[in-house]
Parts: sequence; structure tokens; C-alpha cells
Amino acid sequence: MKILVTGGTGFVGLNIVEALLARGDEVVVASDATLPAYARSVFERLPGRLTDVRADVADSAAVDALFAQHRPVGVVHAAVITAGEVREFAAFDRVVDVNLKGTSHVLAAAVAHGVRRLVYTSSGSAYGRALVESATVTEETPAKPDNLYSITKHASERVCARYCELRGLDVVCTRLGSVFGPWERNTGVRDSLSLPFQVFRHAAAGNEVILPRAEARRDWVYSRDVASGVLGLLDAKTLRHRLYNLSSGIDWKDFGPSWCETLKRTMPQVRFRIATENETPNVSFLGHRDRALMSIERLSSEIGFRPRAGREDVSAEYVTWLDTHRGYHE
Amino acid sequence: MKILVTGGTGFVGLNIVEALLARGDEVVVASDATLPAYARSVFERLPGRLTDVRADVADSAAVDALFAQHRPVGVVHAAVITAGEVREFAAFDRVVDVNLKGTSHVLAAAVAHGVRRLVYTSSGSAYGRALVESATVTEETPAKPDNLYSITKHASERVCARYCELRGLDVVCTRLGSVFGPWERNTGVRDSLSLPFQVFRHAAAGNEVILPRAEARRDWVYSRDVASGVLGLLDAKTLRHRLYNLSSGIDWKDFGPSWCETLKRTMPQVRFRIATENETPNVSFLGHRDRALMSIERLSSEIGFRPRAGREDVSAEYVTWLDTHRGYHE
Repeated sequence: MKILVTGGTGFVGLNIVEALLARGDEVVVASDATLPAYARSVFERLPGRLTDVRADVADSAAVDALFAQHRPVGVVHAAVITAGEVREFAAFDRVVDVNLKGTSHVLAAAVAHGVRRLVYTSSGSAYGRALVESATVTEETPAKPDNLYSITKHASERVCARYCELRGLDVVCTRLGSVFGPWERNTGVRDSLSLPFQVFRHAAAGNEVILPRAEARRDWVYSRDVASGVLGLLDAKTLRHRLYNLSSGIDWKDFGPSWCETLKRTMPQVRFRIATENETPNVSFLGHRDRALMSIERLSSEIGFRPRAGREDVSAEYVTWLDTHRGYHE
Repeated sequence: MKILVTGGTGFVGLNIVEALLARGDEVVVASDATLPAYARSVFERLPGRLTDVRADVADSAAVDALFAQHRPVGVVHAAVITAGEVREFAAFDRVVDVNLKGTSHVLAAAVAHGVRRLVYTSSGSAYGRALVESATVTEETPAKPDNLYSITKHASERVCARYCELRGLDVVCTRLGSVFGPWERNTGVRDSLSLPFQVFRHAAAGNEVILPRAEARRDWVYSRDVASGVLGLLDAKTLRHRLYNLSSGIDWKDFGPSWCETLKRTMPQVRFRIATENETPNVSFLGHRDRALMSIERLSSEIGFRPRAGREDVSAEYVTWLDTHRGYHE
């Protein structure tokens, strides 16, 4: 099956592209950035066929031309700028152009060129304040978008719903948890790197890792689980809903120290400690407040989604991946 | 006091501009459209001083230059495209540029140029589906934006909240009900004209008015009440909230026939009837479904807002206005 992945050179995008290629799909990667040479060399050894195209989703004519040329059967729309506070003000227009207008360009082209299903990778951030107002959120919990990234992801979901309702497009949105795992890198369009990756960067640079004293509740999700959930949504014969949480649904308590210990297996030079009372940590947990766990009941019951076993297993797998893919970070 | 009104040539904008001029304020009208000559001639007889400037809020440099030149103390940001279903798809980008990016341009300029308070005229549409899921909505009812206009108004409110939270701007949002009254006209950027104005247009053209058989619940609000509420929010020494409904809060039952009867006083040629069973009416009620009444308790208790007496009073006033301002529609 020919699948177009927008934002396919990004962290989540690369995981999806790899999973599609691994099962032999024909994949068109569209991005305004270059596919990392290292990722290409890995992907070229997989059974599927890879084409990559430079295209900016903010450019509607370019998006239409992309669809006209490649005629994908399915689409994963993952192109986004994960804007933090600085970019929210300094690059407001560009964030809206990519995150919101870009979504509509992709949806319009999908309708015009007869795409069979489109999966939009939204974000748990779409819940906004609702994430810190309760311990669990389901897809029925009212969203309260609270920053530009959150606002544009939520607005894009609503635009997807309109294309479904009024244009008959088969489109499904999925809200991703806090992703970590293979293929994360500093792309320049993600303002918040995951905890494990921050730790890895310090360790690789020979810095001592200083962890925050208090770790906020967060349901981390492994990037390969995200890819498998997205493929499940792309493949499902029928879906009963148009919105699915995609996370681990569990509280990764004390992820910081446990991750550092696991990383030591392949990087014995790792030094870490908890910050002292007035010390500023050099890694962050993507926010200081406990965040609600995202219920994955809907995705589990409908497509049988199961995140990989335990935190230790995926941590070990990721540590091995980092060790065997050193070329990616050099 | 020098007040900038963006979208000041629009229906709601003209009412706000008129109210400000009537009390002697200095008003800068900014719009990408021309101030109607008839409105100018009326406004020039009012005590305040009027300046009008062509500026497109989608152009951030033009917005900044506008603020730099005129240095307003207060701002009413009313510029918007009230997009219906056709424009939602055909002009998605322009709607986002004006409705969402435009809001951020105005907010950024307000911060940069030391504006004391900004009132953003949002819309009851920001509630989206929540409007048809209950009989009353308060500012605490979770919004469920459901079309592009709704999405961009809701997203803009959230952006206002960010400018307040992170940039210290004194900004207040107000969600307007279904507005009718003086200064309504077909501007080309409003896809839904009010019921009274649709009736008036048919009557003026000599057409028989064919009213829908069932009238959905809707809390119409008189445009001059909207202006008085907005001025109240602009003036209030302190405000306890950042979001206020501004409507009449009452169900205008059978507004169609009652309005037609009132209009007959000055336009005896008005002919109207209810559509027969399979007939298509030639006026619409802005949607077929009952809409929740917007509670105005917050605005009433905090700034003493009271919509004008009864439906008959404002209808009579508007009918007189239409009669004495025939030049506006010729």
C-alpha cells in the first residue's frame, strides 16, 4: 500500500516510516527538512520502497502537487512545529501556517485525490489544562487548549472532523502521549526533548546529569508503540470513533533515575544525581505539574493496541538502539 | 480616550464606533474595507473625533505601524470573517489569517505599544456543539468548536489568554449572541445575515417573505446592546474574569412573525407568511436547531449590563432606524 507520511523526517514520523517500510509498504516521506542520511541508510535495508520529497505543508499548491504526483492510498499527517513558549510568540504565524493551515491543505488534497484514510497525529497537549485538572482523561474529556501548540493541535482535530462530516473523508485523529525512543533528535522544530533523550545528550557530552528533585506524573509512550498504534488506525477495517488516545496509560514513576541506571549498561561513564535543594537540574520533565494519564481503553478495545510490556523492557531496547545506532547522533 | 476599533467598518464594529463617538471619544477605525460613506456622514455629526485607516489585520507589519502611528489607549478587536460552510473550505487560509493570526498581530502590537485594555469580540459560536447540547451555557461550559468560524474564535480567545498570562496584557473576551439591529448590511465577510435583516431586504425588494415553519430557539441581541456591553468592558476599573457572554439571555420566541408585524409599521407593503409543508422559506434562522441561551449573569453582576427592555421596544427602535437611515441601504 502506498502511504504518504507528512513530517516523515521528524521524530514520530521516522518511527512510522520505519514501521511501514518494515512491513513492505511503499512510503512517500514529505517534509520541509531533509531525511537524515543515517535514517535513509537504515531504511534502505528494509523491504518497503522509500521516496522522499521536499514539501512544506504550509504551501497548499505544493501539497496538492505532491498528492497529484504520488497518489497515496493512505496518509499519516504528522508534520508539525512543536512550539514552546518562545516560539509561540516569536513565530506565531509560521506555527499556525504549518500546524493549522498545513492540516487543511493536506485534508483538502486527500479529498481531491481520493485518499482512503488519513490518520492525523494529534497530541495529548490538545487536552490543555484538562491534563492538570484530573488524574485521567478519556477522549470524552472536554479539551481546554492552553498554549499555541495545544490550540493548533485541537483546532486541527476540529478541522479534520469537518472534512469528515462535510467532505466525506475517512479521517481519524490520535492524541499521542509524551513520546520517547528511537529516532529522537534535535530537529529544531521540537522545543521539548524527552527526558531520556536529554539524559542521553548529557551523557554523550560527558556531563553529569542533574535530575529534578520531584518528578511529575507523566505517561511516557515508546515511539515504536506510537508507530504500531498509528499503523493500526491506518489499517483498521472500520473504526467506531474519530479520536483515539495513543499512549502507555501508565504512570512512569521515577523514570529519571531508572532510565539513568539502564543507560549505564551501554554508557558506563554516565554520572547522575538528584539536584540539591537550591540547584537547577539540567534535564526537565516537560513541565512540573502532574499530568493526567491518557486512557487507552478505546484504542485497546477497538484495534487491540497494547503498549510493550514494562518500562524496563522498552528502556533496555532503547538503550540498545542508541548503542547500535551511534551514527545517528554523530 | 483614544480607542482603536479593528473591523470598525463591519456590522458590530460600526455600532461600537458610533457609541464611542457619541460619548466624545477619539476613535480610530481600522479595516481592510472602506467606511461606508453614509455611516461617515452620520458619525461626523457626533461629538467624538473619527479617523479611519485601511489596514488588514492579517498583515502584521501594517498592524504594528497602525499602533505606532495612532497609539491607542484602548482597543476593540472586532475584525473577523464570519465564514459559512462554503468559505470554510474555499477560503480556509484567508479565514485563518484574519481570524486567528490577525488576533495575534493585534495582541502583539497592543503589548508593544502599551495598550491599557483590549476587548476581543468573540462569538457565542465559540461554544460550538455545546450550544445545541444544553438549554443554557455559562462561561464555564466547556466549548466544543465545530466549524471554522467557531474554531478560529475559540482559538483566538485562547491566544488572548496567553497574552494575558505571559505578556501581562489586560485583555478581555466577550462572546456575542446572534446580533441584529442598526448598521447591519451585506459586507461580503458575513455569511449569515440576521433574520430581521433578511426580512427587511426582501421587503425592500418587494418580495413576499416566506418564514420557516419552525423557529429554533435563539437569544437575539440588539446591536446597540452589544456596543454598550463592549464599552462597559472597555471602561470597567477592574474585571474579575477574562471571558463574558454578551447577549440578551432570553428566548425570542416567534421572532419572525412579530418582526414582520413591526416592520409593517413603516413598510406597509411587507407581505409575509409561514412556509407551507414542502415549501422552502426565503429567510433562515441561522440554523435549524434550538440553541442554548447564553447566561449573561456574569456581565450583569459585574458591570451592571442590562439588555434593553423587551423585544417589541428594540424591534420598534430598529424599524424606526431603518426608516430614518434609508440612505444606508440605497
